[in-house]
Amino acid sequence: MSISSAIDALSSLLGDRLSRSKSDLDIHGQSETHFAHMPPDAVAYPTSTAEVAEVVKACAVHNCPIIPWGTGTSLEGHSLAPRGGVTVDLSRMETVLTINAADMDATVQPGVTRETLNTHLRDTGLFFPVDPGANASLGGMTATRASGTTAVRYGTMRDNVMGLTVVLADGRVIQTGTRARKSSAGYDLTGLFVGSEGTLGIITEITLRLQGQPQAISSAICGFDTVAGAVDAVITAIQMGIQVARVELVDTASALAVNAYSGADFPACPHLLVEFHGSDTAVTEDAATFGEIAVDHGGHGFEWSSKTEDRNRLWKMRHDAYYAILASRKGATAIVTDVCVPISRLADALLETQTDIAQSGITGPILGHVGDGNFHAILLIDPTSLSEMVTAKALAARMSKRALAMGGTITGEHGVGMGKLNYMQAEHGEAWAVMGAIKAALDPNGLMNPGKLIPPTN
Amino acid sequence: MSISSAIDALSSLLGDRLSRSKSDLDIHGQSETHFAHMPPDAVAYPTSTAEVAEVVKACAVHNCPIIPWGTGTSLEGHSLAPRGGVTVDLSRMETVLTINAADMDATVQPGVTRETLNTHLRDTGLFFPVDPGANASLGGMTATRASGTTAVRYGTMRDNVMGLTVVLADGRVIQTGTRARKSSAGYDLTGLFVGSEGTLGIITEITLRLQGQPQAISSAICGFDTVAGAVDAVITAIQMGIQVARVELVDTASALAVNAYSGADFPACPHLLVEFHGSDTAVTEDAATFGEIAVDHGGHGFEWSSKTEDRNRLWKMRHDAYYAILASRKGATAIVTDVCVPISRLADALLETQTDIAQSGITGPILGHVGDGNFHAILLIDPTSLSEMVTAKALAARMSKRALAMGGTITGEHGVGMGKLNYMQAEHGEAWAVMGAIKAALDPNGLMNPGKLIPPTN
Repeated sequence: MSISSAIDALSSLLGDRLSRSKSDLDIHGQSETHFAHMPPDAVAYPTSTAEVAEVVKACAVHNCPIIPWGTGTSLEGHSLAPRGGVTVDLSRMETVLTINAADMDATVQPGVTRETLNTHLRDTGLFFPVDPGANASLGGMTATRASGTTAVRYGTMRDNVMGLTVVLADGRVIQTGTRARKSSAGYDLTGLFVGSEGTLGIITEITLRLQGQPQAISSAICGFDTVAGAVDAVITAIQMGIQVARVELVDTASALAVNAYSGADFPACPHLLVEFHGSDTAVTEDAATFGEIAVDHGGHGFEWSSKTEDRNRLWKMRHDAYYAILASRKGATAIVTDVCVPISRLADALLETQTDIAQSGITGPILGHVGDGNFHAILLIDPTSLSEMVTAKALAARMSKRALAMGGTITGEHGVGMGKLNYMQAEHGEAWAVMGAIKAALDPNGLMNPGKLIPPTN
Repeated sequence: MSISSAIDALSSLLGDRLSRSKSDLDIHGQSETHFAHMPPDAVAYPTSTAEVAEVVKACAVHNCPIIPWGTGTSLEGHSLAPRGGVTVDLSRMETVLTINAADMDATVQPGVTRETLNTHLRDTGLFFPVDPGANASLGGMTATRASGTTAVRYGTMRDNVMGLTVVLADGRVIQTGTRARKSSAGYDLTGLFVGSEGTLGIITEITLRLQGQPQAISSAICGFDTVAGAVDAVITAIQMGIQVARVELVDTASALAVNAYSGADFPACPHLLVEFHGSDTAVTEDAATFGEIAVDHGGHGFEWSSKTEDRNRLWKMRHDAYYAILASRKGATAIVTDVCVPISRLADALLETQTDIAQSGITGPILGHVGDGNFHAILLIDPTSLSEMVTAKALAARMSKRALAMGGTITGEHGVGMGKLNYMQAEHGEAWAVMGAIKAALDPNGLMNPGKLIPPTN
């Protein structure tokens, strides 16, 4: 059998860094959302680009699927092994290779997490801004084109990856991009691999753009009478050009879940969590203007803080919100939606979604990176209930359809994986076939993370 | 002959919008730099996406090369017809299709120039920031991943194109991207076509991100004792996180050429042209800080102005600098270099280049978008002198090699075209072959703008 021949070859290559233990296979067959258990046949733990290349070559020879793995925090089943094969766990490639403080860039191995990088950067006056919530690996964040709370100010991984080292499906190793701030030297291969979800190759080094730590940071929580008021406040601020660093919507159901989970005391109303970065004067000016806009839209109870501990508590709470929501229904699993619409349509999208959720009978608290027009309904379902699954999937499908009708996208930041495959044709039409053609050109045997992102070929 | 059959088919399709007049062929066989005359066999003037698709299909049937044309202002021979064929001149597709002021985006046809778009936007409070100098078409700017004076603040075309309509090599029409601010829905095809130089398809619609017109703009010219001082001032400002909107280096030779061409009165020294955008307080604060940095590095004669007419004069002068330099040697043509390096290496790159130019005997004034680490030496040569051409090309090759050794790129913004082909292997290695594989997947017969960007196949 081809997979078992590959495993034999990899055993010789990696020794005990090729694992077939039940616990390892179990862990690498799970995701954080509703997908069924789909374990690989083995897990490889390479420690260098050269070793990844050897692993890929061995798998290519034996026609064995290859699934890259970072921290396993993706939400669309990206790292599952629906066709078996070898999961390449990159967690042992966790070295921060270089930090060029003068050029504000750093090169890391893919297993370095965003928090680890920021710890390394602490004394440089720099930080890496992209923050999807989970302490994800930078390789995984690159592969899924992650973003999160700070994208409204600093952009997504698309904007913050300058260059990559990639092991291709045939084991060739390429470098993409440079450390220059811009380039017109041919096709943007860096951009092509960012968001390619392991389907075109395995990312083994990443050069990231860094940001200077702002002189001042000010953050606040503000309750609103209605979701519409909160969203209209955001829309007004964005359209006025106020440079928010983060602006997050937490709806009433999410606020109550957070209270129960982490002992917070949010009033039972929708909230915005906002943060400004800049000079002392700019931050003060922006916060004041935003405060006025909020009050105009039914905001209340505004308290600004520039203390680090207040801020850390605030964002810890936000980042725990997904787990708080999951915990709010015992034994539940989640279908996490991720639509993103033009900002002018955000209020419509949110309110129609809330009505739709209410009518469906499914519990679905909403969290949103609303400055980008991006929000998530966390649809809680009993994993043993087929009818809940069907109802929730239909709800998620209507959300996607609504986003597309508004000029938006089916996934703002979570990626396609297995979970969004069914919506790709509707979003891209013939362009999805073009993605398939690119895939076929770079991975003709379809071994790189099969069953994800591209049109099914069999 | 295949090209003549294509032309017959296109004549039926387009009537007098297919031109074979000598003047039309001549115009479309020229570039603004040193390339030889390479006219197409015919010029097509389609007026819609559907018509472009018909043109491409007819050419595909008859195996006829297709060369897209915007305004012909590219600098690397992108729009020449080295293998003949049909030039698709998109200048009649010049409609601004939609402006979504609330979402700060606009969709245009490819023949709309950046100045035309900004004229349309005048009453909206918005503007399109990318400014390569020439009043280029937005289609051409997209296809070459153009940038220019404002990229240091607003990014390049990579950062400002949200979505595209593209006619592929087989005549299929695809849409890429959405109007949402971010998406993780599969491969970034928008990013792949931005900078693809017409080699993967013809761009027929572009959705662009717009910016709010800043509350305040302040600009200034400042002389420096030395280029090193000017560059060190820029590096310090960038590293301190001061948000310049533009920062341009004009070296002594360029300043003198501008004086002669447009009656300016620059002192005979290097200059920085800088501009800040933002709130009144931010602009005042940034300008003051920048002024102090400049003085510390030998800057003098600083005068700030927030008057529109002063600013327009300043940037008109900067944009005319290329023509001023060309005019400074009668009958000369130019080899325009375009390296971009990490900011920490910019002073080294510039000073080594100046020494190299001085030793070569070639006249080569330097202009730079120095906030990005990007600069151009305009190497003036007698087009009839083979020895000058050889010397200048060797100089340009050394500049590229130096940029690569410093972690930079052979082209910051002009693209590859025909002029940078010889350096692509050095910059990309095996990744250049990957570009060739993508090209082969999307244009297997190699008809889309042949002889540009990708590795030669015959």
